Amino acid sequence: MSTHPPIHPIHFTSLLKASLLQWKQQVGKKGVWIKLPIELVNLIEPAVKEGFCYHHAEPDYLMLVHWIPVTNNTLPPNASHRVGVGAFVMKENGEVLVVQEKGGKMRGKGVWKFPTGVVEEGEDICDAAVREVKEETGIDAKFVEILAFRQSHKKFFEKSDLFFMCMLEPVSFDIQKQDREIEAAQWMSFEEYVAQDFVQKHDLPRYIAEICSAKRDERYAGFSPVSTISSFSKSQCNVYLNTADLSSS
Amino acid sequence: MSTHPPIHPIHFTSLLKASLLQWKQQVGKKGVWIKLPIELVNLIEPAVKEGFCYHHAEPDYLMLVHWIPVTNNTLPPNASHRVGVGAFVMKENGEVLVVQEKGGKMRGKGVWKFPTGVVEEGEDICDAAVREVKEETGIDAKFVEILAFRQSHKKFFEKSDLFFMCMLEPVSFDIQKQDREIEAAQWMSFEEYVAQDFVQKHDLPRYIAEICSAKRDERYAGFSPVSTISSFSKSQCNVYLNTADLSSS
Repeated sequence: MSTHPPIHPIHFTSLLKASLLQWKQQVGKKGVWIKLPIELVNLIEPAVKEGFCYHHAEPDYLMLVHWIPVTNNTLPPNASHRVGVGAFVMKENGEVLVVQEKGGKMRGKGVWKFPTGVVEEGEDICDAAVREVKEETGIDAKFVEILAFRQSHKKFFEKSDLFFMCMLEPVSFDIQKQDREIEAAQWMSFEEYVAQDFVQKHDLPRYIAEICSAKRDERYAGFSPVSTISSFSKSQCNVYLNTADLSSS
Repeated sequence: MSTHPPIHPIHFTSLLKASLLQWKQQVGKKGVWIKLPIELVNLIEPAVKEGFCYHHAEPDYLMLVHWIPVTNNTLPPNASHRVGVGAFVMKENGEVLVVQEKGGKMRGKGVWKFPTGVVEEGEDICDAAVREVKEETGIDAKFVEILAFRQSHKKFFEKSDLFFMCMLEPVSFDIQKQDREIEAAQWMSFEEYVAQDFVQKHDLPRYIAEICSAKRDERYAGFSPVSTISSFSKSQCNVYLNTADLSSS
């Protein structure tokens, strides 16, 4: 059921025309935003006819914007990247947590890979890594650090992708795999993981294996999260940095 | 001028109804995508009436999607993060490149800050840092590494932000400031930069100053880009990692 009372497009257009006239006379008025919930889809065409263009959309709304001044448009750009995480979870005996996925490009190939997933709206990278490991394997783990990350382009449509490879320390050990996405999950010796064709024959898994190997021998420092307060919004946010080097210096 | 011939909404609706009937009978058919350029804004309402919802939008188009199966929707999520860069550019004599911005929250406050900017669609983080330094100050510089990064949420609407602090080595030294965004640009002693109230009183600038200070004394390793080939798309992409630790191990 719609939570927005219907608005007739003709009524909306005359309101918009009057408002635009006013806004154009206001000194300092720059960008005008209209957020239209999907129930008001009938108002998109009138807004576009009055000079609005799209800014961004989510499943249930479209954000439109109109730039008033003749000077250069300084509107905030739309989000450009999806963010993913992978998790290197190693027991003290050197075994690593691996899964086989039911879907995706690896389906049915018998490849054992580290758990991976997508960072949700408003979620911290470190929390996403812990959540994905728990969801896919039932293992509780503590975030340690980001070992490396990859930036790639045009992963879907024109958007880009940032994938953060994280190291986690397991605090529980009994695997309870999730059925929807995961075919199998187990602890496997690191040597057996690295020996897979999939790791040896591809750049990224090979680099990650090399980094994990250096990390296992405590010869590698990644970036750890430090909680800070943002200067302007006064809200909490994480800064990721090489705390090992910073504290030793 | 429109590059898309007009389509009547009634004609579009009957085409769509027929196609949807067909797709629903096809085994394995999952997500159906419609990309509507802004000139075809009149077709959004008919598509929504047939069960499509929004996926994402850019200024000149709206992408709609309809999930056919009764099973869980596994559509790729929309982009969630904007990506920004800051540049620490230091000469051998210890002077750093700083600017005063014409706009933004620092306007008119006399604060000298490192050059910053937004990563463009499809642009590598390392290239964005070099481009922003060149655009704002005229200085040519070589990318060295990422020193740290910050993730923050709800920077604009519901979207998040990743800000990468980069170190660059200058290869030219005569400043030619850009007039549109930059009030002033200069080389300044690192000590003078750090002594500013703005740096001392806020978490992030203080952390960055501490990292830059450690970096200056070669006591800090960040993440450097390494060019790799993506396993699946066969395209080039950068992996950022602690190459100093990896090569010494």
